[in-house]
Amino acid sequence: MPEQPLAAGAPRVIVVGATGFAGALAAHLLWRHPRFELVAVTGRSNQGRPLHALYPRYRVSLPVQQLDPDGLVGIDAAIVAYPHAAAAPTVAALHARGARVVDLSADFRLASLPTYEHWYGAHPCPELMSAAVYGLTELHRERIAGAAIVANPGCYPTAAVLGLAPLARAGLIADVVIDAKQGVSGAGRGAGEETTHLSMAGENILPYKVAEHRHTPEIEEQLALLGAEVRVQFQAHLVPLDQGELASCYVTPTREVAAEELRELYRAAYAHEPFVELAGEPPGTRDVLATNMCRVFVAADAHTGKIVALSAIGNLWKGTSSQAIQNLNVMFSLPETEGLL
Amino acid sequence: MPEQPLAAGAPRVIVVGATGFAGALAAHLLWRHPRFELVAVTGRSNQGRPLHALYPRYRVSLPVQQLDPDGLVGIDAAIVAYPHAAAAPTVAALHARGARVVDLSADFRLASLPTYEHWYGAHPCPELMSAAVYGLTELHRERIAGAAIVANPGCYPTAAVLGLAPLARAGLIADVVIDAKQGVSGAGRGAGEETTHLSMAGENILPYKVAEHRHTPEIEEQLALLGAEVRVQFQAHLVPLDQGELASCYVTPTREVAAEELRELYRAAYAHEPFVELAGEPPGTRDVLATNMCRVFVAADAHTGKIVALSAIGNLWKGTSSQAIQNLNVMFSLPETEGLL
Amino acid sequence: MPEQPLAAGAPRVIVVGATGFAGALAAHLLWRHPRFELVAVTGRSNQGRPLHALYPRYRVSLPVQQLDPDGLVGIDAAIVAYPHAAAAPTVAALHARGARVVDLSADFRLASLPTYEHWYGAHPCPELMSAAVYGLTELHRERIAGAAIVANPGCYPTAAVLGLAPLARAGLIADVVIDAKQGVSGAGRGAGEETTHLSMAGENILPYKVAEHRHTPEIEEQLALLGAEVRVQFQAHLVPLDQGELASCYVTPTREVAAEELRELYRAAYAHEPFVELAGEPPGTRDVLATNMCRVFVAADAHTGKIVALSAIGNLWKGTSSQAIQNLNVMFSLPETEGLL
Amino acid sequence: MPEQPLAAGAPRVIVVGATGFAGALAAHLLWRHPRFELVAVTGRSNQGRPLHALYPRYRVSLPVQQLDPDGLVGIDAAIVAYPHAAAAPTVAALHARGARVVDLSADFRLASLPTYEHWYGAHPCPELMSAAVYGLTELHRERIAGAAIVANPGCYPTAAVLGLAPLARAGLIADVVIDAKQGVSGAGRGAGEETTHLSMAGENILPYKVAEHRHTPEIEEQLALLGAEVRVQFQAHLVPLDQGELASCYVTPTREVAAEELRELYRAAYAHEPFVELAGEPPGTRDVLATNMCRVFVAADAHTGKIVALSAIGNLWKGTSSQAIQNLNVMFSLPETEGLL
Repeated sequence: MPEQPLAAGAPRVIVVGATGFAGALAAHLLWRHPRFELVAVTGRSNQGRPLHALYPRYRVSLPVQQLDPDGLVGIDAAIVAYPHAAAAPTVAALHARGARVVDLSADFRLASLPTYEHWYGAHPCPELMSAAVYGLTELHRERIAGAAIVANPGCYPTAAVLGLAPLARAGLIADVVIDAKQGVSGAGRGAGEETTHLSMAGENILPYKVAEHRHTPEIEEQLALLGAEVRVQFQAHLVPLDQGELASCYVTPTREVAAEELRELYRAAYAHEPFVELAGEPPGTRDVLATNMCRVFVAADAHTGKIVALSAIGNLWKGTSSQAIQNLNVMFSLPETEGLL
Repeated sequence: MPEQPLAAGAPRVIVVGATGFAGALAAHLLWRHPRFELVAVTGRSNQGRPLHALYPRYRVSLPVQQLDPDGLVGIDAAIVAYPHAAAAPTVAALHARGARVVDLSADFRLASLPTYEHWYGAHPCPELMSAAVYGLTELHRERIAGAAIVANPGCYPTAAVLGLAPLARAGLIADVVIDAKQGVSGAGRGAGEETTHLSMAGENILPYKVAEHRHTPEIEEQLALLGAEVRVQFQAHLVPLDQGELASCYVTPTREVAAEELRELYRAAYAHEPFVELAGEPPGTRDVLATNMCRVFVAADAHTGKIVALSAIGNLWKGTSSQAIQNLNVMFSLPETEGLL
Repeated sequence: MPEQPLAAGAPRVIVVGATGFAGALAAHLLWRHPRFELVAVTGRSNQGRPLHALYPRYRVSLPVQQLDPDGLVGIDAAIVAYPHAAAAPTVAALHARGARVVDLSADFRLASLPTYEHWYGAHPCPELMSAAVYGLTELHRERIAGAAIVANPGCYPTAAVLGLAPLARAGLIADVVIDAKQGVSGAGRGAGEETTHLSMAGENILPYKVAEHRHTPEIEEQLALLGAEVRVQFQAHLVPLDQGELASCYVTPTREVAAEELRELYRAAYAHEPFVELAGEPPGTRDVLATNMCRVFVAADAHTGKIVALSAIGNLWKGTSSQAIQNLNVMFSLPETEGLL
Repeated sequence: MPEQPLAAGAPRVIVVGATGFAGALAAHLLWRHPRFELVAVTGRSNQGRPLHALYPRYRVSLPVQQLDPDGLVGIDAAIVAYPHAAAAPTVAALHARGARVVDLSADFRLASLPTYEHWYGAHPCPELMSAAVYGLTELHRERIAGAAIVANPGCYPTAAVLGLAPLARAGLIADVVIDAKQGVSGAGRGAGEETTHLSMAGENILPYKVAEHRHTPEIEEQLALLGAEVRVQFQAHLVPLDQGELASCYVTPTREVAAEELRELYRAAYAHEPFVELAGEPPGTRDVLATNMCRVFVAADAHTGKIVALSAIGNLWKGTSSQAIQNLNVMFSLPETEGLL
């Protein structure tokens, strides 16, 4: 099981929580990465087993360890793949020992403490919130470059905000409905047989958390930063696939917009983005399978006057783990696409 | 391969176009039905082969015949499962020979000839349009009972209109976005490998016909009949399952509505419907798999002020073929649930 | 949620363990059955909830109860859907109170106590073993008709033995390899995310229990009864579907057999069986989806001299729950196909 | 859509027949490869469109061209992804112009002309057969290194022969049954809706070509080269996944073999192979998803005396396209794992 040869002096990275879907993929991507050295993987289960035994298609032969922040020496960065609330103290501990952290949880995504508390309860480490930068690379790469903590976005906000950003910046969003669909890997490895057993998830299209989704404030905060102060109607659905996510966004515009103006807005926004592609036809999630790409499509509906923006990503890739690598590349001044093509 | 024993004097029915998914299921349901006699199945391919050889899990041992309207003797009814435009002349021929017809195509669904022409081109038999009744049983069963021609609804309108009807009747719909998802059987048997090959449709969520969907006028006409004159934003998606369809409807209400009022509206509308069930939790399409049920859920979103109505059906069942049987039951004064439980 | 109207004086049946996949399907089939009355469903979880709430596509509105054998009054029969070892004492308790029992577990399938003990440990109720009849209906229907306890076969033995019985009876099996494939419903509802999570079971073909499968002795006992004393090489695999099972059987014959003799053997064996169909082409499991059918195909391989017998069933249907109904029909002198067409 | 930066002086390669599943994946792998330059892709359809438009998740922006062997200048190698019989003349034309060729078809896999003719009819270019080396890298890498034409193995032979090679070499195979299962990508892009439509392939396990499979002679030839002269019982099945293939091999040994001897045989055979892994537990195809790995497992069955050898590959990867890259690496003296980790 040979490993990718490594550049000398490569930053040393660990993955914390590597036994779940997101952490394991992050470890796999770092293992293959020519410019980072994956030095350890930790997990709260399966300690002592090589990660490869849990995920044989990933070649990571490192054993799963218990996390011991005090034992960390010479670690440059960490990706933390813990559930929210569990993540923040770990992020704090790693931060205190000098590691730069990409946190996959929701703990540092929201800028507003009251909003966090409303949705998640007391914040474990509110004093660190100001040290964190929101890690939607395309929107915040300058600040990510210097960040001590990067709050990797949720997969739904990644798809939705990239699908809507050009409209938000242009002041075109009066109202928006986001209908998102996702494969069951998004529910996580331990989500319970009700939703993820193939005999339950198969032949199923399952809406969940109706009118109560936690990703709403994250989307609203990011759209507001871009200039769109709106209340977002967001609805999530599970569909029978492993990975893949589509956000279908229906925008009531603030004014009439011609199709060509729309296309030009998106073209200009994403012409130089290596990982956002403006599609010539409606994008399917298979189009971005196992890539860090986001594929975006926009159309004006002459019948209703609304705008339809579609945005497809891999929920575990651009929606989670490969975007974490994209952010690490930015944080360590590597080419943003390194290890991701 | 024994057949269900049959009541004496049962109406004699044929299925025209029985080799496609919808026609085959209709034939299967009639074959099992204790009160109808399936006397022939026709098709434009596979003539001479028993339908059972094409669809072994259906027991219909009748051979696929070429349709010969002049040879039809003593036929009481027909289900026509042809594509639009091909269906109308066949419906006319059967109608002229005294058979009552349930047409699964779009040819007689629209009341407005100009609307039809806008979406489909010249109508093959405009003179028959007034003889047709729209076959969404729950809305039109009195007129269906006496109809010579029943235009079976599209699967998308079935899900959407049943999901929205209580709101439309109550005058509550100011604006509506309908995001619909469907299994690939909805694309038909001959749709082409681009969309239906498991290696293309698998791991895919595929939006199609963006801002140009033909089901829109059908939904708008039915909502208008119920009192809601709105332009409907409709978007369809294919997801990787065989059968199943979910319409997620996002309504901007004309006034503020309390959650309890909403639930009461739906409860009242569907309390006595054998095939519409008000769900206590968001309905998945697996909940209605291989049944004629429509499962509906409604919620008020306090954050946005919008209403979310979800409606799950089997696209080939309540969305097509079993609803055709439900209509036949009504047309021949049988219990509406006969053969469908 | 209307129920099928019921014949007067119908036998009263309960399903014990109705919250798992097999018990729930058995309850559904009884609920729809015109000649049995489903009077109660029991389960060790979800007590008080209607079964319909757990499986919305089944209309069974009875609440899940705790099993209380002493409280049972006027019960004619029971289907017991418990895991092995847990089943036997319950079967005994129901038997003691006069109910005839179809047991879906492995507890009473083996005639040989030593064989049982080798594979499963001590038998909870060895004194009842002689009262049980092996419920592969096609082989034992005369004895099933009068049985107090019917040991419903495992799904693998059902497919394998029906595929091989004509060869076994004809003394043609010198050696046999059985390679079986099954959907993940066969692993049960609570099997754990390693095998059943769609993100693990999807895109997977997973052999399990290599060279150690418990279904072997059951197959060997039945083949021996038919005249074939062989050691069976059996291997099971999970494939990414919900329901469906195929047994591919490779037989080294005791003598050369012509293709036509083979076909005639099978034709004669199954010509009058309502639920076994000799297929003209290799059978897929979709051919029997949601039916009680077993579809069998046989071919002679001129190159190797071996015989290939293929047998497709629905693992939860003919492999489990619908075969239980078939057996109940036989036990209560109803037409064998009643409620199953 | 940035491309992988390329080493100077990299061999220039084209892919012929790049619009099918296998050719497209080969093009994708070459595009990402740091040591080959993909200079053109050809196809018989979609000419002029970028390959990326057909397979958006592959970044290959080259337009699909018509193949013009005379126009080829400075091409070092070609991968030919044509159906059998169509491939050979193209291989000949490319060979005549000095390109080294990896042929994915069956045309040059068999050493015996009579065997070829028996299964495929007249050979288009028999004079080239002796120039071709069979491209199962692990068995023939020395000859592949110098070959003008490499006949890339079929996916079934790849899995089967790697699963059986240690036994064949040790003279242990008296008789063998190979039961193979494969995802529907193996049927190709244009296979027809009967087998590949998700509504037909889903919930299906479909045996095909019973007792008549063309891959048998290829397996038999390779086993014979290793020392095992046996007639192989081979049976293929389609299961509902995209990519993945498992060969379950049941061997009657020539003598009794202890489990430890078996494990040692396999350990020795594959200890230094970068792309064959001896698994500690039964391998699922998900374990090798989107990799060039073959995962092998072997067990002795004490009950029957047989040996069970299991071999999992990705049918489009190690079974086809990534093995072609592995062979190209060998042919051009690159590290065998280059571009494949």
